[in-house]
Amino acid sequence: MDLNSYITGLVDGEGSFLVSFNLRRRRKFGVEPRPSFCLSLSRHDYKLLEEVRNFFNCGAIRFNKGDNTYKYETRSLKDLVTKIIPHFQRYPLKSSKQNSFILFREICQLMRKNLHLNYQGLIKIIDLAYQMNNFGARKYKKEYLLKIVNKRKV
Amino acid sequence: MDLNSYITGLVDGEGSFLVSFNLRRRRKFGVEPRPSFCLSLSRHDYKLLEEVRNFFNCGAIRFNKGDNTYKYETRSLKDLVTKIIPHFQRYPLKSSKQNSFILFREICQLMRKNLHLNYQGLIKIIDLAYQMNNFGARKYKKEYLLKIVNKRKV
Repeated sequence: MDLNSYITGLVDGEGSFLVSFNLRRRRKFGVEPRPSFCLSLSRHDYKLLEEVRNFFNCGAIRFNKGDNTYKYETRSLKDLVTKIIPHFQRYPLKSSKQNSFILFREICQLMRKNLHLNYQGLIKIIDLAYQMNNFGARKYKKEYLLKIVNKRKV
Repeated sequence: MDLNSYITGLVDGEGSFLVSFNLRRRRKFGVEPRPSFCLSLSRHDYKLLEEVRNFFNCGAIRFNKGDNTYKYETRSLKDLVTKIIPHFQRYPLKSSKQNSFILFREICQLMRKNLHLNYQGLIKIIDLAYQMNNFGARKYKKEYLLKIVNKRKV
């Protein structure tokens, strides 16, 4: 068994790349992008998630009472850029999640250059994030975020 | 990328092994076990399911209007025994689905020997099937099936 290929298959099944947004009054533009990579499995599969955590050597596992699952999640931008993203470049996803991954990678790279602290950069990140598949998971509509950012621009 | 390991990962995420039961009046014991292996993916992932179908060289893909997914499925006992099961023996599942797979394999092997046409064999198959995880997918309660089989025994 090749664990690299196995992990990519598992993530094509149950993983997701998400960029959510928090509202932060004290931030210059009032909006903070929050990229995360996660993988949810049944409550019987805690050990497998531990193996995933050890494989990536980052992230944490939490229990989700709501749907009785365990969720592995990495939110650290540094870990996403240096550990998670390189894996999926070497062992690319084969499902439509690959589209989301490409957008996710671009957003993380922009953030790594601190471009989310800059007006044009932040607008670009919001635009990319709302092209991702897992759209439904968003708290705010794109127009709402753009309104907040644009109000602060002046 | 090693496709064998990838497929096992994908199936650990989204695949399932199921043994359902049909009621068949003309059968000696009135009950027919129906093993199947399936994998459901989003409507954007038809191509990936085609790759899975080609990989196993058996089964069919259908669209499921209900939840807007495509479903790859193999029901042929011969294909299950000669193509599906050997793959998961060489590249074992790492999730709790492995427990279901072991029971599934035993049921298919019993059926391959035609033991589902025999009272003791059929009772054993029902017993094994109701130890599998995906319990909830069952149309009939175990007690109901046993009642039908036992009525015909005499």
